[in-house]
Amino acid sequence: MKLGAIEAGGTKFVLAIGDDQGELFEKEVIPTEHPDVTMPKVISFFEGKGIERLGVGSFGPIDINKESNSYGSLQKTPKTEWIDYPLGKELKNELGVPVIIDTDVNVAAMSEAKWGNAADVDSCLYITVGTGIGAGAYIGGQTLKGLSHPEMGHILVRRHKNDEYEGGCPYHGDCLEGMAAGPHIEKRWGKPAIELTEDEKVWEMEAYYLAQALVNYIYIVSPERIVMGGGVMKQEQLFPLIRKYVLEMLNGYVSSPFLTEETIDSYIVPPGLTDEAGVKGALYLAME
Amino acid sequence: MKLGAIEAGGTKFVLAIGDDQGELFEKEVIPTEHPDVTMPKVISFFEGKGIERLGVGSFGPIDINKESNSYGSLQKTPKTEWIDYPLGKELKNELGVPVIIDTDVNVAAMSEAKWGNAADVDSCLYITVGTGIGAGAYIGGQTLKGLSHPEMGHILVRRHKNDEYEGGCPYHGDCLEGMAAGPHIEKRWGKPAIELTEDEKVWEMEAYYLAQALVNYIYIVSPERIVMGGGVMKQEQLFPLIRKYVLEMLNGYVSSPFLTEETIDSYIVPPGLTDEAGVKGALYLAME
Ligand SMILES: Nc1ncnc2c1ncn2[C@@H]1O[C@H](COP(=O)(O)OP(=O)(O)O)[C@@H](O)[C@H]1O
Ligand SMILES: Nc1ncnc2c1ncn2[C@@H]1O[C@H](COP(=O)(O)OP(=O)(O)O)[C@@H](O)[C@H]1O
Ligand SMILES: [Zn+2]
Ligand SMILES: [Zn+2]
Repeated sequence: MKLGAIEAGGTKFVLAIGDDQGELFEKEVIPTEHPDVTMPKVISFFEGKGIERLGVGSFGPIDINKESNSYGSLQKTPKTEWIDYPLGKELKNELGVPVIIDTDVNVAAMSEAKWGNAADVDSCLYITVGTGIGAGAYIGGQTLKGLSHPEMGHILVRRHKNDEYEGGCPYHGDCLEGMAAGPHIEKRWGKPAIELTEDEKVWEMEAYYLAQALVNYIYIVSPERIVMGGGVMKQEQLFPLIRKYVLEMLNGYVSSPFLTEETIDSYIVPPGLTDEAGVKGALYLAME
Repeated sequence: MKLGAIEAGGTKFVLAIGDDQGELFEKEVIPTEHPDVTMPKVISFFEGKGIERLGVGSFGPIDINKESNSYGSLQKTPKTEWIDYPLGKELKNELGVPVIIDTDVNVAAMSEAKWGNAADVDSCLYITVGTGIGAGAYIGGQTLKGLSHPEMGHILVRRHKNDEYEGGCPYHGDCLEGMAAGPHIEKRWGKPAIELTEDEKVWEMEAYYLAQALVNYIYIVSPERIVMGGGVMKQEQLFPLIRKYVLEMLNGYVSSPFLTEETIDSYIVPPGLTDEAGVKGALYLAME
């Protein structure tokens, strides 16, 4: 069966045709512009290719509740041209196939659990630390969603004792994203994160915030693996710092062979999939 | 089909026989003593009654991973006589029927979603605020579990600006449970919670901590309803205070018709089921 897949990101759309074995036949990348510009390109990529279903992993916030009238519609995203855009409905109407939509981070979590660095376990939480902070989870054979999709980047964190940055989330000030996303590292220290590689205190503080988030995710969702991606996680020195803080904060409370000094290196890991994670996950969604 | 159900609590075990329509035929309550005393009573209650499967909602921590060798075994619980007790295996060996075990709070969440105050929606998070704080969730048609069951009571919270209590969790000091469970209300204010009903600042502070937890649960799990039970929640004045703080902390970030000033009263609610919630949930588990 031929399937379509879209990774709809804030910067680019990745479009692909594949099959129900996870194989990709054709791929194209287009920039994310105004929907009036981007969408015709998307439609013409898929038209006439004989796809039977289409899976989409999208930026958000987006309505992913299948029962809802606005299923597949973007919500009040910072990409203002896309606010309330009915992405799912448009695709369905134009291409005449069932469209299954989930968030980019839920799809990434599913991809890592199927083909990536969590392929050997049954559940996975994926967090991206980039322009914003977002996370998704694949657990019990499905992505996590309820009222809406999770917004795990906005949880409350405790301030680091040496931190005077007020926090930059427009909604919450000093939530996790407001303290630890890439742009806030830059605002706090006066330089882009990538130029701060050598400055230990920067990464110690960053690890402190991210570890708090991971500890809460472990207590609340209990995933069998945590995959950390996004631009900021390119700073590989973060991994050992985060792992150390997570063990310290858990303080032995969760008894699991995964959460020991010997095993934590394979519990908190970088992504196993690179470029194709998004579309591969979207392809898998189309199979559901 | 005849089914057995056990609500295994730290104080009492509720035993019942019912059917796959959720009807209960027979019920008995016994105190939780040493396993050598309690377990023979449990076995003799069920023996010869012709049950085909047995569901158990248990206190914890307990291994609820079906793939695990120690599935159904208690872990390092404060009830020291039960540490490492293979509850599931014992029941299975003695009664010769399949035994399905989950946590008491997961079972409560499921019960509320089936027959209680969340019966009109598809997902539910249940939190109990009593001697300890625990929470479980029923979402996507199943209870939430992964690496282990969630331990949502131990998440990190921010200290209230007027609070000097150091926190009493033996593992984390000032985690949610260490700040907001019944015994810590008593230690902070020098009187049992039940004698503090008239003292507004007690409940304002308690609501501040519980609201932080709810906000994190909303961001991370996104349940369609939150049910709050346990001894401390008998203080009904907590509900409006918690709802107010939750809306303030979310600050409009999650766009959902459930999370508005008009609708929050039916989003954060007391339990709909009282005594029978635990066994009814366990009965439902047995049907799986
Ligand atoms: N190598 C790097 N080291 C540290 N920070 C980086 C690096 N690369 C990108 N970033 C930061 O990550 C953010 C961009 O995140 P990225 O994940 O690349 O994109 P997006 O989140 O927009 O999809 C920027 O704030 C940037 O400063
Ligand atoms: N009506 C009440 N008001 C305030 N606190 C209460 C009330 N009833 C019980 N508590 C507190 O709740 C805790 C017991 O919780 P409960 O849910 O009854 O039992 P458990 O958690 O042991 O199953 C005690 O710390 C007690 O002080
Ligand atoms: Zn925020
Ligand atoms: Zn704790």
